[in-house]
Amino acid sequence: MKHFKAMITITLRKSILDVQGKTVEHALHSTNFTSIDQVRIGKYVELTVHAADAQQAMSIVDDACKNIIANPIMEDHHIALEEISVGEHA
Amino acid sequence: MKHFKAMITITLRKSILDVQGKTVEHALHSTNFTSIDQVRIGKYVELTVHAADAQQAMSIVDDACKNIIANPIMEDHHIALEEISVGEHA
Repeated sequence: MKHFKAMITITLRKSILDVQGKTVEHALHSTNFTSIDQVRIGKYVELTVHAADAQQAMSIVDDACKNIIANPIMEDHHIALEEISVGEHA
Repeated sequence: MKHFKAMITITLRKSILDVQGKTVEHALHSTNFTSIDQVRIGKYVELTVHAADAQQAMSIVDDACKNIIANPIMEDHHIALEEISVGEHA
């Protein structure tokens, strides 16, 4: 059994208006951060998964994203996996 | 003037209990995703910044994170920068 750290970024689909991002952009502009625009806000999830190999780990995390963590109708998700030793996952 | 896309991950400090992460972990366990644990939930922010060079862009985004986007008392942030061409940032 191997252990993997999964780093998942979840972003609202490009076609969907990001109200939270627009609000942060206005806040930035009104505090003199005028060189920043196109702010979009998503979620970042880190988790540990125990699996036989990286392929199985990726499959488990992808299933979890589709079913629980992300909303596949409105959001896209991207998963990065990194193998960790037993000591690190504790 | 160059254009950069900044990808920012904001995570709750390790010492702070992540109630949202625990809730998602319970939901995963009760839907048979038992090989996943240590779920921690943060934010992911994408934005475009216009600056003379990468160093200036990083400095602007770091300031924006410390002042507006993240809460430096409870959260850590990590910034990745990528130069984009004029066409891409539109």
